[in-house]
Amino acid sequence: MPTVHVNLGPRSYDIEIGNGNLAEAAKFCDAEADDAHAVVITDSNVDGLYTETVTDPLADLGCEVDILVIEAGEQSKSSDVAAELWERMLDEGADRKSVVVALGGGVVGDLAGFVAATFGRGLRFVQIPTTLLAQVDSSVGGKVGINLPGGKNMVGAFWQPRGVLIDVDVLQSLPDREYRAGLAEVVKYGVIQDADFFAYLEANIEPVNDREPSVLTRIVERCCRLKADVVEQDEREETGLRSILNYGHTFCHAFEAATGYEQLLHGEGVAIGMMCAARLSERLGRVDAAFVERQRVLLEAFRLPLDVPDVDRDELIELMYRDKKVERGKLRFVLPTRMGHVELVRDVATDDIVASLHG
Amino acid sequence: MPTVHVNLGPRSYDIEIGNGNLAEAAKFCDAEADDAHAVVITDSNVDGLYTETVTDPLADLGCEVDILVIEAGEQSKSSDVAAELWERMLDEGADRKSVVVALGGGVVGDLAGFVAATFGRGLRFVQIPTTLLAQVDSSVGGKVGINLPGGKNMVGAFWQPRGVLIDVDVLQSLPDREYRAGLAEVVKYGVIQDADFFAYLEANIEPVNDREPSVLTRIVERCCRLKADVVEQDEREETGLRSILNYGHTFCHAFEAATGYEQLLHGEGVAIGMMCAARLSERLGRVDAAFVERQRVLLEAFRLPLDVPDVDRDELIELMYRDKKVERGKLRFVLPTRMGHVELVRDVATDDIVASLHG
Repeated sequence: MPTVHVNLGPRSYDIEIGNGNLAEAAKFCDAEADDAHAVVITDSNVDGLYTETVTDPLADLGCEVDILVIEAGEQSKSSDVAAELWERMLDEGADRKSVVVALGGGVVGDLAGFVAATFGRGLRFVQIPTTLLAQVDSSVGGKVGINLPGGKNMVGAFWQPRGVLIDVDVLQSLPDREYRAGLAEVVKYGVIQDADFFAYLEANIEPVNDREPSVLTRIVERCCRLKADVVEQDEREETGLRSILNYGHTFCHAFEAATGYEQLLHGEGVAIGMMCAARLSERLGRVDAAFVERQRVLLEAFRLPLDVPDVDRDELIELMYRDKKVERGKLRFVLPTRMGHVELVRDVATDDIVASLHG
Repeated sequence: MPTVHVNLGPRSYDIEIGNGNLAEAAKFCDAEADDAHAVVITDSNVDGLYTETVTDPLADLGCEVDILVIEAGEQSKSSDVAAELWERMLDEGADRKSVVVALGGGVVGDLAGFVAATFGRGLRFVQIPTTLLAQVDSSVGGKVGINLPGGKNMVGAFWQPRGVLIDVDVLQSLPDREYRAGLAEVVKYGVIQDADFFAYLEANIEPVNDREPSVLTRIVERCCRLKADVVEQDEREETGLRSILNYGHTFCHAFEAATGYEQLLHGEGVAIGMMCAARLSERLGRVDAAFVERQRVLLEAFRLPLDVPDVDRDELIELMYRDKKVERGKLRFVLPTRMGHVELVRDVATDDIVASLHG
């Protein structure tokens, strides 16, 4: 079973990737310890599918298990739902010895991670991501948080999990649209860090679309390793390196906010945002038209939407200026210079940004 | 001007203690930097008194200053008010380059610190404590947080300030009751860590009650040093050492919760809790009656309440079991063995706890 080790000194941990390994959470939960207590946070979509597979082995080892189910969807990543979870954990007697297990997609992982980072000033937590997007991106690296009505991921913490347990088999039951949305982040890693991986994806469009298990394992492992490489060098996004992972995301966050977080899945927003960023890079003379086209062809092969949503352009620009990645009023963008390499570009003119919205 | 250095590696900082130094916040705020931005969080009591003294010099240096005023009182230390502050900071354009300045007592420091720890996954923050309790205790050491309806300080983080600016002159305007409440924490340091300091307080009851400036400076400096010694060795309360600072607090938190956080000031609860803990220690044969009496005489000289509030005893016990310091259902207490020394005691019988509630 492939393991990706994330080396962060005292906060190091393993990402274990397998097939049918969903029942192996015990090792990350100290489930055999006296007074072991796990708080499993999941959502209404995942609850009926995988909860028992995860919790039964924990309970069999004598671990007390509480299951807290939130409503599926981005709207749960709010301060209200966080406050509700804090209260419920208090009611269940959670304390510093408890482990929070995030079982679900990105929303569950981010929200449960934030709750774990703050309840009792910080509890241990374990990620069991069940969507492709969460497996290749949000469950790795310790970024946890919630949205504000005025902006996505505006509140949160850097809080590393004790371990990440990835079962690629669960991807077989993922709705088509969600699976594709995850592929946007997969393509992203190729563009920003690994030209060979981008070429591998180009050469394997059919098996990827067919969710072939061996290909899924390889993809998830590679993406986790690429993300870990970045996180190990810039855990708290201080040097600027980690921000390369935000390729396409300044656009994406504006699209999501403008459409009320309902029309687009995050990965879909990333795909559209990557196209805007690539066009912006072309406008600024950093890549050529062939680069933009190559990215477009692969995203299209994975049947991702590529058109900017039909919302007011001025509003989009304003939303970008409100994004967390703005430094005192100056927008910065992660832009490619060649396949597998991006750079952080500051002081981009608003006119260029507007122009890059159009395909 | 006395400075206490808190040595926490990359999170080290200075506590500067002076008279009339409230205008010197600039050094901790990078106020002269390009795009400097300070978000000053204060409460309705402090706002009219000291805000301008703090903010005018910042603004004079070109720093953009936003002032957010919360309602004074413990009820503001809630998830609702935190969410409100997050929203307002987003509206004011706060970002990772902004500095949060907590200007006020313990409620402001804890709440503003929590907001700083979580907005944008963590902003720099500066403590300017304006009550004795905040100056000697809550502003030092990085514990920040909010209350849940079901329990005090249940949600939070360890988030160290970049600096603490203490002006003991502001203590002259502190209401009598609040000043005394702070003295409870001062006495606590003597009991748990420093017999000589306890004797110093016994020898200086009148100047302490008269708020003599030189005595105030000495007291604040000594308490900050004593707290820093503990925090430097156990920043995240992992080894058990830091929990000695919670002497009297398991009782105190139950009293506060049982009386709805309105009847008692925190320091008053600490004074009563210290008496319970001393009696408990006597019952367990760890100190003699003379120790309990010596502590009582000093707390009484500072005119602190010492009687347990008139609430149901069973409710108090139940509340103690809900406290964050409980480890999977086992209460533990910080109990003195001699003046200046305490130990962590586990598995105390409920009968002994109940008996120690009575004077």
